Amino acid sequence: MAFRATARLQTHARIMTDATAAKLKDLSTCEIADALIKLGVPHGGLIPDLKMYSPKFEEGETRIAGPAFTVEMVPVSHPDKSKPDQHFVDAAPSGSVIVMQTPLGVRSGCWGGLMSTAAQTKGVQGAVLDGGCRDLNEHRALGFPVFARGHSVLGPGTFTRVRALNVPLTIKPAPPNADPPFPEITVNPGDYVVADLDGVVVVTPDMVEKVLAKAGPAREADEKVREDLLKGKGVSESMLKHRGKAP
Amino acid sequence: MAFRATARLQTHARIMTDATAAKLKDLSTCEIADALIKLGVPHGGLIPDLKMYSPKFEEGETRIAGPAFTVEMVPVSHPDKSKPDQHFVDAAPSGSVIVMQTPLGVRSGCWGGLMSTAAQTKGVQGAVLDGGCRDLNEHRALGFPVFARGHSVLGPGTFTRVRALNVPLTIKPAPPNADPPFPEITVNPGDYVVADLDGVVVVTPDMVEKVLAKAGPAREADEKVREDLLKGKGVSESMLKHRGKAP
Amino acid sequence: MAFRATARLQTHARIMTDATAAKLKDLSTCEIADALIKLGVPHGGLIPDLKMYSPKFEEGETRIAGPAFTVEMVPVSHPDKSKPDQHFVDAAPSGSVIVMQTPLGVRSGCWGGLMSTAAQTKGVQGAVLDGGCRDLNEHRALGFPVFARGHSVLGPGTFTRVRALNVPLTIKPAPPNADPPFPEITVNPGDYVVADLDGVVVVTPDMVEKVLAKAGPAREADEKVREDLLKGKGVSESMLKHRGKAP
Repeated sequence: MAFRATARLQTHARIMTDATAAKLKDLSTCEIADALIKLGVPHGGLIPDLKMYSPKFEEGETRIAGPAFTVEMVPVSHPDKSKPDQHFVDAAPSGSVIVMQTPLGVRSGCWGGLMSTAAQTKGVQGAVLDGGCRDLNEHRALGFPVFARGHSVLGPGTFTRVRALNVPLTIKPAPPNADPPFPEITVNPGDYVVADLDGVVVVTPDMVEKVLAKAGPAREADEKVREDLLKGKGVSESMLKHRGKAP
Repeated sequence: MAFRATARLQTHARIMTDATAAKLKDLSTCEIADALIKLGVPHGGLIPDLKMYSPKFEEGETRIAGPAFTVEMVPVSHPDKSKPDQHFVDAAPSGSVIVMQTPLGVRSGCWGGLMSTAAQTKGVQGAVLDGGCRDLNEHRALGFPVFARGHSVLGPGTFTRVRALNVPLTIKPAPPNADPPFPEITVNPGDYVVADLDGVVVVTPDMVEKVLAKAGPAREADEKVREDLLKGKGVSESMLKHRGKAP
Repeated sequence: MAFRATARLQTHARIMTDATAAKLKDLSTCEIADALIKLGVPHGGLIPDLKMYSPKFEEGETRIAGPAFTVEMVPVSHPDKSKPDQHFVDAAPSGSVIVMQTPLGVRSGCWGGLMSTAAQTKGVQGAVLDGGCRDLNEHRALGFPVFARGHSVLGPGTFTRVRALNVPLTIKPAPPNADPPFPEITVNPGDYVVADLDGVVVVTPDMVEKVLAKAGPAREADEKVREDLLKGKGVSESMLKHRGKAP
């Protein structure tokens, strides 16, 4: 079943990469999140707490966009012993972003230098890890984008194993959470993932056109606000004028 | 009431920036904290857990100093519906440091690129956020100093709103806290805020002269200790000689 | 007793630095951790959650290796009032890595610029802090390696004091921990500590030769896997071929 799902995504991904992902990549993660919030998506697409580790740590203009190829890792002791037919990098389609999850608090990494080598060679856009990476200098030498919750010296073996590919991943913010809490977010295979210095967002395929439609005018309005602010005009005045409402 | 408080601070700030803030800015946050500890301030002025995000992440010689202009944000669901008459950046006086608080665990940011643009244009020294920032490359392109608890792709709308300007903010360390716990710290409008690579400290106006009086001799003693250490002398011996007591 | 233990370590350390530490330093922390995991060490040698703060933050090729000289700090209120005969930097032998622990959640640092000055002058390899550092620009100007849990503006005085030198330190991962939990790790005086960008690992003296024996062939196999991946071969296929088993 994992294999059939992969085959479906590969076709899907090829179509997406050529057009939709390119359009989304022109937007910053902040612009996409703003559009999603305006469209009523309660989490604004945010996968919380992830940082850019490669090609630079928390620095630079790197942005990736592509359909998610998801990988679920569980503790080795997990009772469900199912496993995929293929290694997850072998199964990931060109143009995709690999989104991988290990349980919160696991201290081993799930993504190392050989994974970046293999993924980059086959055209994967980058890795988004709700978990840890290692071999930081190897990813950076390759220039392969890695976004992660943290880093470790430990590889995945002994601690975790892959249970399934191309399944929905539900990501919760690490504690502490606010009151009311920030909601969990589910990443489905084929959802678009956009990641840059500010963070990582997910856009479901049905929302892409709506996001693009919202983000263009918002960027233009922001540019006009910025010009006014540089002239010394007030924030309230400028936003009222160009966004139609005061902040 | 918020407006009257702001007007008072503006006069206050102008006087301060020209003299007191400049003197404090010559001291590192570590030197200020050392002086405050010696003077019996239990938290040493530290606002815990904040990091420099701009102009560089956790790197560089940037230091800002100025009187605090405080901004309190609450969840949108907060029962007190009061709000200030002005946008907080419009209300912040030239020379001040904007100190802004969102509740712990909120995943949206409270400070973006347009805020840095407006604040820099009107002469605000920098932003100190007990909360998150976004648009990291925009702050860095401006060279505007931003110190924060973290970053996000989400803006403040939908999640939080400003309740009050120029009110005391009480900041607690995020968990885990030690036993005995590190104390909370209250930042009052007009308190001096100094921030650099090592962190952020707050000095109440009545302590400024005492801090300056303590810090000068301490720096001289440290310099003598350093010279001895470079000659290979012992730490205990050098500190006893130049500080008058062994560590 | 603290003094006698130190004297013993000094002899021990001299032998080690010339030979064993140099061999370990040729391995990355990831390679060492992999070997330890294969050898059945449940924590793989990892001291969790530490980051490189100097000579650069989370960046660069720096690696240190040496026998641990351990320093235990406790809250000032701790009932056991014993203290060492010497300052910990005075007591640390040339070639060693100082490993220092403050209780979790303490907001003061335990390592500042003068400590790096003294330690570097006497040939200490670096500082590994289960706690905080300060004076970041001073360590970086010296090029002295500092790995830490975080940073602060506060020095140790008032909050903590050194209780003992050259005693075992038990380090637990900060919350959140996974289920099953990542185990605690004990660092004994004279254990080898290797630290680089990916993290910090500890190798007990009896494991050194075993680690070296495992790590060489593993590196060669990884190099062959990498070459195959760069040719576009599959991850499963390449690992089966060169490691003798699929991942």
